[in-house]
Amino acid sequence: MKIENKKIRELQARALQLRIDSIRSTTASASGHPTTCLSAADIISALFFEGMNFDLENPQEKNNDRFILSKGHGIPVVYAAYKQLGVLSDEELMQLRQFESPLEGHPTSRFIHNEAATGSLGQGLAIGAGMALQAKQDSFEYKTYVLLGDGELAEGSVWEAAAFASHESLNNLIGIVDCNRLGQSNQTLYGHDIDSIVKRFESFGWQVISVDGHDIEQLLSALATAKQAKDKPVMIIAKTFKGYGVDEFEDKNGFHGKPVKKEELESVLASLRERFAGVSLESLDTHASRALGTSGNKVSSQNDKQKVASSAPLVSSDLQGKLYREISSATTISIDLTQDPNHKFFASNQTIATRKAFGYALAALGRASKNIVALDADVKNSTYTDIFEKEFSERFIQCFIAEQTMVGVATGLQVRGKIPFVATFGAFLTRAHDQIRMAGVGKNALRICGSHCGVSIGQDGPSQMALEDIAMMRSIPDSIVLYPSDGISTYKLTECMANCHDGISYLRTTRSATPILYAEDETFEIGGCKVIRHSDEDKTCVVAAGITLYEVLKAYEILKEQGVLISVIDAYSVKPLDSETIKDVAKKSGNRVIVVEDHYPEGGLGEAVSLALSGEHAGSAITVESLAVTKLSRSGKPEELMAYAGIDAKSIVQVVLLRL
Amino acid sequence: MKIENKKIRELQARALQLRIDSIRSTTASASGHPTTCLSAADIISALFFEGMNFDLENPQEKNNDRFILSKGHGIPVVYAAYKQLGVLSDEELMQLRQFESPLEGHPTSRFIHNEAATGSLGQGLAIGAGMALQAKQDSFEYKTYVLLGDGELAEGSVWEAAAFASHESLNNLIGIVDCNRLGQSNQTLYGHDIDSIVKRFESFGWQVISVDGHDIEQLLSALATAKQAKDKPVMIIAKTFKGYGVDEFEDKNGFHGKPVKKEELESVLASLRERFAGVSLESLDTHASRALGTSGNKVSSQNDKQKVASSAPLVSSDLQGKLYREISSATTISIDLTQDPNHKFFASNQTIATRKAFGYALAALGRASKNIVALDADVKNSTYTDIFEKEFSERFIQCFIAEQTMVGVATGLQVRGKIPFVATFGAFLTRAHDQIRMAGVGKNALRICGSHCGVSIGQDGPSQMALEDIAMMRSIPDSIVLYPSDGISTYKLTECMANCHDGISYLRTTRSATPILYAEDETFEIGGCKVIRHSDEDKTCVVAAGITLYEVLKAYEILKEQGVLISVIDAYSVKPLDSETIKDVAKKSGNRVIVVEDHYPEGGLGEAVSLALSGEHAGSAITVESLAVTKLSRSGKPEELMAYAGIDAKSIVQVVLLRL
Repeated sequence: MKIENKKIRELQARALQLRIDSIRSTTASASGHPTTCLSAADIISALFFEGMNFDLENPQEKNNDRFILSKGHGIPVVYAAYKQLGVLSDEELMQLRQFESPLEGHPTSRFIHNEAATGSLGQGLAIGAGMALQAKQDSFEYKTYVLLGDGELAEGSVWEAAAFASHESLNNLIGIVDCNRLGQSNQTLYGHDIDSIVKRFESFGWQVISVDGHDIEQLLSALATAKQAKDKPVMIIAKTFKGYGVDEFEDKNGFHGKPVKKEELESVLASLRERFAGVSLESLDTHASRALGTSGNKVSSQNDKQKVASSAPLVSSDLQGKLYREISSATTISIDLTQDPNHKFFASNQTIATRKAFGYALAALGRASKNIVALDADVKNSTYTDIFEKEFSERFIQCFIAEQTMVGVATGLQVRGKIPFVATFGAFLTRAHDQIRMAGVGKNALRICGSHCGVSIGQDGPSQMALEDIAMMRSIPDSIVLYPSDGISTYKLTECMANCHDGISYLRTTRSATPILYAEDETFEIGGCKVIRHSDEDKTCVVAAGITLYEVLKAYEILKEQGVLISVIDAYSVKPLDSETIKDVAKKSGNRVIVVEDHYPEGGLGEAVSLALSGEHAGSAITVESLAVTKLSRSGKPEELMAYAGIDAKSIVQVVLLRL
Repeated sequence: MKIENKKIRELQARALQLRIDSIRSTTASASGHPTTCLSAADIISALFFEGMNFDLENPQEKNNDRFILSKGHGIPVVYAAYKQLGVLSDEELMQLRQFESPLEGHPTSRFIHNEAATGSLGQGLAIGAGMALQAKQDSFEYKTYVLLGDGELAEGSVWEAAAFASHESLNNLIGIVDCNRLGQSNQTLYGHDIDSIVKRFESFGWQVISVDGHDIEQLLSALATAKQAKDKPVMIIAKTFKGYGVDEFEDKNGFHGKPVKKEELESVLASLRERFAGVSLESLDTHASRALGTSGNKVSSQNDKQKVASSAPLVSSDLQGKLYREISSATTISIDLTQDPNHKFFASNQTIATRKAFGYALAALGRASKNIVALDADVKNSTYTDIFEKEFSERFIQCFIAEQTMVGVATGLQVRGKIPFVATFGAFLTRAHDQIRMAGVGKNALRICGSHCGVSIGQDGPSQMALEDIAMMRSIPDSIVLYPSDGISTYKLTECMANCHDGISYLRTTRSATPILYAEDETFEIGGCKVIRHSDEDKTCVVAAGITLYEVLKAYEILKEQGVLISVIDAYSVKPLDSETIKDVAKKSGNRVIVVEDHYPEGGLGEAVSLALSGEHAGSAITVESLAVTKLSRSGKPEELMAYAGIDAKSIVQVVLLRL
């Protein structure tokens, strides 16, 4: 590849300016990671000012190349690039990590050009794979670039994603490892053993190019080669030095996350300039305009900084993937159970597992919108996403037994406008807890279904039982947690999830078949509940959701025979919780609530109801008791395990009577 | 290697019997995974009846070879091996998955010969690496064998562990992949592309041997080679067929987790016997005795089945690693702050970060017991485990940025008698949630420290803030969750953790330095709390722990100036919670409780207090309010973020006054 010397000189100058600004901004904030920015500066310069194609004015333009900073702590150097692109003023850049600034210490969606929230290492490659997959699915030509650190290569999630990307032949995915040898506290697992890293990615089916990560020409050449990849994703292993350019800390341990002190700033910058004495920063702005306007490899050009700054807002007022989100959410997706070809399975005299009802609803959603995609981790015949796959194999993504990748890929797909449904055993969602947590930080609208919840799964034993999933999913900011009991409520709540564009929504499903409880014209809304038994003589209000609701209904009949009436509430929306209705019914039911759930007490429905009703506002007279799984379960028949946990009808009857 | 034909014939017969019994037991339980047992039967026969060395009578004998079934759903074939070893009767084997039987559907510690709870895939290799590491550390000669499935190779955790094991040169760790091509719902990521698997493990620094997994001679030869490994761990890639031996389902999709129906059992067994027509089962028992008694490669022999069955109990009444646990817990480990060389940092006029106090306590524990080990994920200079490392580098295990491996290795070390302390940022413990969950199922005594908790970490932003860790750790059965506020309570609670041998204990630490609150002779116990402000005129009881306790104390002073007195409780033991004391104080403080925590409300201290006080027993008059982090945080100064979350002194004052 022939690269003009002038271009190289420009990119070297830009890299120097990136280094200067990374040091300045982290010094201004008195926190942050300048040394990791210095190792990445040449890579960022090569990518942002030559390698990548994008229309800066329209961050969501569908053919813009995409960039994920997997090594999230290096974000100041990216912000510094946006200054050179005219998006940020120097004053704005110096607000790094300040409360009012969108330029957070690690990437979040508050800065509109950040594609994903990162900062928990090892997550970027799967998200990038999701974006690359969207481009394949929709025949878009953009490339997705992911910048990783060598430290995070120790995370298994990187290798999961690597295996996925090569399996899917994502030749439009380009990774770059900023291999700067040093982690936070010591040398990384690999150090500068570039050969090991090359071999590992090659064995995982990637085309690998290793370069001197401080040589602009080598970087541009590698990027040009990568863009021509035939059938494999490409990983560029860039050998770099942490703190490159400043002798005081270059390639030295002990300088991770250490900004330069204010009083040392001038001398450090002087040292940096001296090191790059041959690099001229003088005409950098002119170069910038020309690079953006005439290089010919941008989707569109942008010469007017002011215009850029005003047209593309700094702060994402809402979600990532804004444009696509608007498309996705512009029309409500509706499905109609009465018109469903599988309608007969929902007849009032039937039993159907909620997991299966979810599968039917997902297929119906697939018919209603091409944006719906489903992701599996080799349990599709248990979660029933295989019902969707049968109709829409091209929108069904098999991630194999790799839950972290499944969630990461879903995040990437969602950012690029898809409406992803992720499903596996609820227990195995714990494997992707960190990815789900970060999707929460990124405000990504993932729809997640966890099946096989609770001790009621029976013989498979505790390793397969989700008993902490409600706690996990409730503790994601702004999340929605749904736990339907029957097929009809499941079908309708799955429909609701498709229209939840504001963060994580979670559906908890049950293994065993349960009777249909509701009429097919019953409506269900997020934040609602159903009072399914109520009289003027109720002694207690029993709240349940999912499998335990049937135990409560059995208890109701037993108690009724004994002349004791209880009100029964189906709290299918665990979060947000309809605490007003529960409170109202409780007040008419002896001011007493018993919550029954197939979940550990901690963070479950019982604690949610308890806190919601225990505040000053709630009226202090209501008492709340929790029947939940308080000890480790085991293998056995579902009914044995429900009894062992004290959440079956008999236990409920006992507790109701005990306190009368 | 010369192997007698007779031995091969015996092992073939044993494998056939394993197949027969795996089918029979899963049919008896009408659930389970016979086809995955059939693919593994020859491997299990080669391992259990020739390859491994162990004293069956003394499962905890220190030089017994160790076996981890990472593909946990294949456990029936292992139970079938224990029948042939005389540990289980046929009647006991047929109780598979029954409520009273210790033979659960996936391995748990209830069957004493199970080394680890598995069943969530991809976790066994890290646990095995921990065991192999113990052997290295203590110069034991045993080998650790891990049987994996090919499906679980999609899990990143396998590759994390693979990288760790080769980095640590664990040539005493032998993995075997039962590469049967088929997952639960379709072909695995690799299928029978053995070459890809070989290349990947080789690139990860393993010696790799590929064999026909149904050829006993090849298996024995590979095991013999593996035992001679010089400096690398060894992975044996065994090409097998799922359902091997039964034509009806051999190598066919759709038979995962499908036991043979009762009515088809006889014909399936007949088909199996026909397939192995040349294999005689007639003198199997005799062979068994001889194999155990005379082969010479067992640590000790066992000819008397009755004796075996009676001397080694089936059911682990308590924890795994019983023998070692008895050693570890035989003496209480004591440390004395007054004698600590770092005593001066705990002086009453000092401030010290609880994370640092943890580091000092850990080093003191290291001095008190050689069993203490510490594991890091490249944040030792943030969690302050580097204080321990400086004194005890040989007991400090660097896992790099691989939290899943860190927890898995700690589990293996604990099973072999170590007292492991695991530490990283609390937020990144979510990455290992599934491993922690499974350690809970295994009743493994892991001591876990999560640092940098809450919005109070400040500028680094939400990706680095643990705000769900209390919920996660509380929802492990029998777990202990501690959240100290000052250096002295941290030091003493860390000492308590070393003596917690009954499951997971968790310590939550804070980034910033906080003043010393307690005298150095103050005692702290698990399940306790401290009433640090109390009078007869208190209007409200405010409960806090960690960083928010200082905000409450500030609020106390502000309110006192306004003539309003509150009681203040340091709930340092979040689980178990001292709800009796809180209740008593609340009753004397206007029947009103406000809980303040730097954590999401879901599953946190507020919900714990609320539910504990909201039952019938609690006296219905107490109201509980929660001040917690109800929205996504961001970068900013700690005090700004505490105010933004409404958990600072000013917010507390407002809420106290609002309700008076």
